[in-house]
Amino acid sequence: MTDDVLLAQTTRNGIVESCHYGAAIVMDAQGKTVFSAGDCATPIFPRSTVKALQALPLLTEGAADKFALLDTALALACASHQGEPAHIAVASDMLARTGFDYGVLECGTHWPLDTTSARALAASGQTPCALHNCCSGKHSGFICLACATGQDVANYVRPEHPIMQTIAHTLEDVTGTPHTSANMAIDGCAIPTWAIPLSALALAYARFASGTGLSPERAAAALRLRHAIASNPFMVAGTGQFDTLVMEELAPKVLTKMGAEGVMIVALPEQGLGMAIKCRDGGVRAAETAAAALIARFAQIDHSPILSHFMRRPLKNWNGQLVGELRASSLLAQNFLPFSVTDNA
Amino acid sequence: MTDDVLLAQTTRNGIVESCHYGAAIVMDAQGKTVFSAGDCATPIFPRSTVKALQALPLLTEGAADKFALLDTALALACASHQGEPAHIAVASDMLARTGFDYGVLECGTHWPLDTTSARALAASGQTPCALHNCCSGKHSGFICLACATGQDVANYVRPEHPIMQTIAHTLEDVTGTPHTSANMAIDGCAIPTWAIPLSALALAYARFASGTGLSPERAAAALRLRHAIASNPFMVAGTGQFDTLVMEELAPKVLTKMGAEGVMIVALPEQGLGMAIKCRDGGVRAAETAAAALIARFAQIDHSPILSHFMRRPLKNWNGQLVGELRASSLLAQNFLPFSVTDNA
Repeated sequence: MTDDVLLAQTTRNGIVESCHYGAAIVMDAQGKTVFSAGDCATPIFPRSTVKALQALPLLTEGAADKFALLDTALALACASHQGEPAHIAVASDMLARTGFDYGVLECGTHWPLDTTSARALAASGQTPCALHNCCSGKHSGFICLACATGQDVANYVRPEHPIMQTIAHTLEDVTGTPHTSANMAIDGCAIPTWAIPLSALALAYARFASGTGLSPERAAAALRLRHAIASNPFMVAGTGQFDTLVMEELAPKVLTKMGAEGVMIVALPEQGLGMAIKCRDGGVRAAETAAAALIARFAQIDHSPILSHFMRRPLKNWNGQLVGELRASSLLAQNFLPFSVTDNA
Repeated sequence: MTDDVLLAQTTRNGIVESCHYGAAIVMDAQGKTVFSAGDCATPIFPRSTVKALQALPLLTEGAADKFALLDTALALACASHQGEPAHIAVASDMLARTGFDYGVLECGTHWPLDTTSARALAASGQTPCALHNCCSGKHSGFICLACATGQDVANYVRPEHPIMQTIAHTLEDVTGTPHTSANMAIDGCAIPTWAIPLSALALAYARFASGTGLSPERAAAALRLRHAIASNPFMVAGTGQFDTLVMEELAPKVLTKMGAEGVMIVALPEQGLGMAIKCRDGGVRAAETAAAALIARFAQIDHSPILSHFMRRPLKNWNGQLVGELRASSLLAQNFLPFSVTDNA
């Protein structure tokens, strides 16, 4: 086994049921490691956690201004949304400003991740389109970027397309890590994703949080995106989602973004810190729980209902009866845990 | 970290993305360990993997005969079904034979796990009832058992109810492990679940597979349940589910049952073997993948499309493009893997 650490565990009537291991790191924009635990060096796929970085060219290349994108649209460009009506409306509006509709999107189609919205769509006799894809905001941003910079939109998801080249160069600069065919794979929404060390991901979000280490244009873009995200937590995820719930309570002090397969980033603008977490088994629930603990600890938030909830999440059965909990490891949370436990792994 | 072993891992364009660790054990009915890896001693909650054992009293106490339950009903009593129309029909029929309807069930209500069925239910303007709960077959069996043995059905899910006492004593006998308040918690469907060593779970299914070590009545009941399950793989789970797909191809040679939080059991009647797997992080996908590998190895099945699929499951994006795979560790599968890899953890 690796040298990963316990991030979170579930208990049932006090008996440990499942354990999640992984790595977590907190860095400042100068590259100083403030905290680390587990393997933060082996490259991981950041998946959707880099969406705010992928949205930087939307501003630096003038697309947001050209199409007069609202903050809701900028937040949706950084989102893994749940396919709720408000998300669909904003994505649709972004495309309309370019003269396109959802037929231009190459992200693929799936039913809304929000099950209430999926059932409502079905009940209305409709089926989903590419707008319902959780990445449709990001992809609509790519279309805006292509149109603003005079690129043909066809095949915009391919690695060799100028838009994806722009994205790759941006990620390379901000993370300080090569993005080449050697560390590239294809993401769930068809665009490239590059494996990078967890430390590089944390450094990138320390830079995003503070502007330090970014060009003036990128620093200004990061500031505008931070504002857009903090002002629209619902756009970034949706009903009942970690990112939305945490930012509704704690933004602009705390910005978070989940990624598939148990990745999570946190930006703390006031402290100028970036965090990155990888639950090695891909468990999203553990990445959320670990993030809540590290936010409490490094943003020094003593009393936060939403952080307390996610650090010690109640597990209920179908009758609503409390049967156990999902809790952060004390290794991560230390004295910021809202209870006293001994890790049992 | 524990001494668990790599069960399965996902890769994306050949680069490892996520890793699942846990334990697995294969035993015969005499209690001989044929294979083990990882921590098989620390008690785990078997969750729904014990459903076939919980169904033994339905036969030994005469309830199945009294209500003339069909094999479809016996299979559904052992199921975590997806809430598809065929499942609902059988559960409803089981209850009707006792004079009750779904109002008697204490398992709680949720939307069908099969998303197509959930959307169809919504499109028809209906909402789910307790019959759609994935455990409604098991609970309908409890109602049959209560009615056949003259028990009041009220509060049948409580640990002190005679029905749950019967279940506890059966599990205690078959697993050879105490079932007391010290190792008890509450399951998702409101009945008790007891933490037992993974080895005890494997031993119980070696006994279930062979009849060896069981009383003649329980051995006959196990034989009848094996036949009912093997004849009705769809009833045990549903569309696209591991248990259904594997048993549609390989039953009665191979019987499988998943449980929540990454538990899996396998019974191999021809070999008289029982297996139990716990993915420590609760990952169902890894328990399935590991089970496929161990089935191939210990049932000595060289060419099985469904096992090959689950040992090396393709991961596709929303456009249907192959982007990676979920594969069993070579530690588990050895030369039964349909490919050559080096574990990378």
